[in-house]
Amino acid sequence: VRPLAVTLGDPAGIGPEIAAKAWGALRTTGPHFFVTAPLAPIAQALSLAGLPPPAAIAAASEAAQCFPNALPVLAPSGAPQESAEMVVDSIKTAVRLAQEGAAAGVVTNPIHKKSLYDAGFEFPGHTEFLGHLTGMRRPPVMLLAIEGLRVVPVTVHLSVAAAVQALTQDKIVDTGRTTARELSRLFGIARPRLAIAALNPHAGEDGALGTEEKTMIGPAVERLRAEGVDVFGPAPVDTLFHVRARAGYDAALCMLHDHALLPLKTLDFDRGVNVTLGLPIVRTSPDHGTAFDIAGKGIARPDSLIAAIQLAAQLARAAA
Amino acid sequence: VRPLAVTLGDPAGIGPEIAAKAWGALRTTGPHFFVTAPLAPIAQALSLAGLPPPAAIAAASEAAQCFPNALPVLAPSGAPQESAEMVVDSIKTAVRLAQEGAAAGVVTNPIHKKSLYDAGFEFPGHTEFLGHLTGMRRPPVMLLAIEGLRVVPVTVHLSVAAAVQALTQDKIVDTGRTTARELSRLFGIARPRLAIAALNPHAGEDGALGTEEKTMIGPAVERLRAEGVDVFGPAPVDTLFHVRARAGYDAALCMLHDHALLPLKTLDFDRGVNVTLGLPIVRTSPDHGTAFDIAGKGIARPDSLIAAIQLAAQLARAAA
Repeated sequence: VRPLAVTLGDPAGIGPEIAAKAWGALRTTGPHFFVTAPLAPIAQALSLAGLPPPAAIAAASEAAQCFPNALPVLAPSGAPQESAEMVVDSIKTAVRLAQEGAAAGVVTNPIHKKSLYDAGFEFPGHTEFLGHLTGMRRPPVMLLAIEGLRVVPVTVHLSVAAAVQALTQDKIVDTGRTTARELSRLFGIARPRLAIAALNPHAGEDGALGTEEKTMIGPAVERLRAEGVDVFGPAPVDTLFHVRARAGYDAALCMLHDHALLPLKTLDFDRGVNVTLGLPIVRTSPDHGTAFDIAGKGIARPDSLIAAIQLAAQLARAAA
Repeated sequence: VRPLAVTLGDPAGIGPEIAAKAWGALRTTGPHFFVTAPLAPIAQALSLAGLPPPAAIAAASEAAQCFPNALPVLAPSGAPQESAEMVVDSIKTAVRLAQEGAAAGVVTNPIHKKSLYDAGFEFPGHTEFLGHLTGMRRPPVMLLAIEGLRVVPVTVHLSVAAAVQALTQDKIVDTGRTTARELSRLFGIARPRLAIAALNPHAGEDGALGTEEKTMIGPAVERLRAEGVDVFGPAPVDTLFHVRARAGYDAALCMLHDHALLPLKTLDFDRGVNVTLGLPIVRTSPDHGTAFDIAGKGIARPDSLIAAIQLAAQLARAAA
């Protein structure tokens, strides 16, 4: 079994600490992984967590053998001095190894976009950078998962006002199509069932509380159905996430970021995993940020990174 | 102990059925209540539920004695033939009895606004009608409650686009002030703690994802704090509702209808209760609609109405 490549993330955030703790939790059970990073920040994080020192490896194929005894670290070539360069090199190395087939997939630690922008990074975020590195023309789709619930926000990092403006019928159809295809390919679901949430309260109440359901979301549902997708909606978003409703679909598409994130984080705050759909490689990440405020204190929880590593291994098996 | 007045709601909806079933569930334990309605629809609902016939009463004070043996029904004066008139008379009678002190509070069954509009009803909904009947000048505030969570939507029955336009600093401050005052008066909380949710993803991410947090919500939080309210925010709305976060406040104010309803219905779909704050009488209602699609089939769940009756009794004791 090929190992997963875990990136460094921002070295001033909790990435190194949770990578160290995740290794501590998974060293005897797997999944196997290695970190693409210079040795120093990982060695420091392991030491702070009271764990043994890392093992420098030169190729992904060396990871499995040393994993039970030491966290394998594969340093990108070159010796970047700047933190931003280190962050970007870590991602590039992990992606290259996954594309070459040496790594089963990529699990990314959180980055801090402002720091990267200052250093010349030109992408809105991780996901777009990965789309660029892997030569994708269509924008990738973000899926978030906990045990028993998968959600896909159709609009992501926009204000509510801008998101309402950015929504289009095509965008909903494209997102639904990618989601259905990837639920089959990555999650092994033969005939995925999609729920499409409404934008407005009471699903617009027949036009009285907004027209997007009639002009945009309803027609998008019809188009997806005509393409053979098993889909229902637009459903009032507040009715989609209780325990009985969750049994009725494999993923729920939500029009706004918080319509998707709210039920996910309400039900399981610590173990959300972000999965990128529409890439030629498997990629997951924890659904939290760099958490600068608690970095270095030894109190960061590795739960989400562990879940991201476990899900990446599962998706890599299904996609193989 | 004074009984509660329960309204008929739309007679073609599930109101009569759930009132009958709620009586069946509460007849030996209380809280005592009576229905303000003509006898016929209630008699029919009891019969369909396999329960004994109702008892016609002429005054609220007769309810307690017959409650263990028969559901007390107090018919409004006059004999309306039209359904819409029956619905409105039921509400007026219940409110009058609560204002006179004969009833401890009002629990309203769901109405169908379109039917009432056709019959000349001129209010956006129940809540505004109750504000009018009780002579309130300020618009009442809607609070929704389940065990362990209270939420207050600052905007209610508007499209998302219209809600974003309708939000103002004053509206947030007014809603927060009413909520804090009523949490003390009705819920007996000496020093209520309010969470104020952000509108935009990541609470606007320092202005990158929307400005309302800086221009409107943040200043509203400061004003409430200056008035002595124990308040925090604007907090990213997706982080406010997991089990640890819920322990940190007595009510969460949310900018959009579904930001408030989504966590509530996700956590407990069947037992949400709507409480009207800012009225001179106690008023609760189930948080579902008329459910015409399942009316008359005997399958409607009375859970939310039962919770509304129980909460109304509790609020009436605190407010007494």
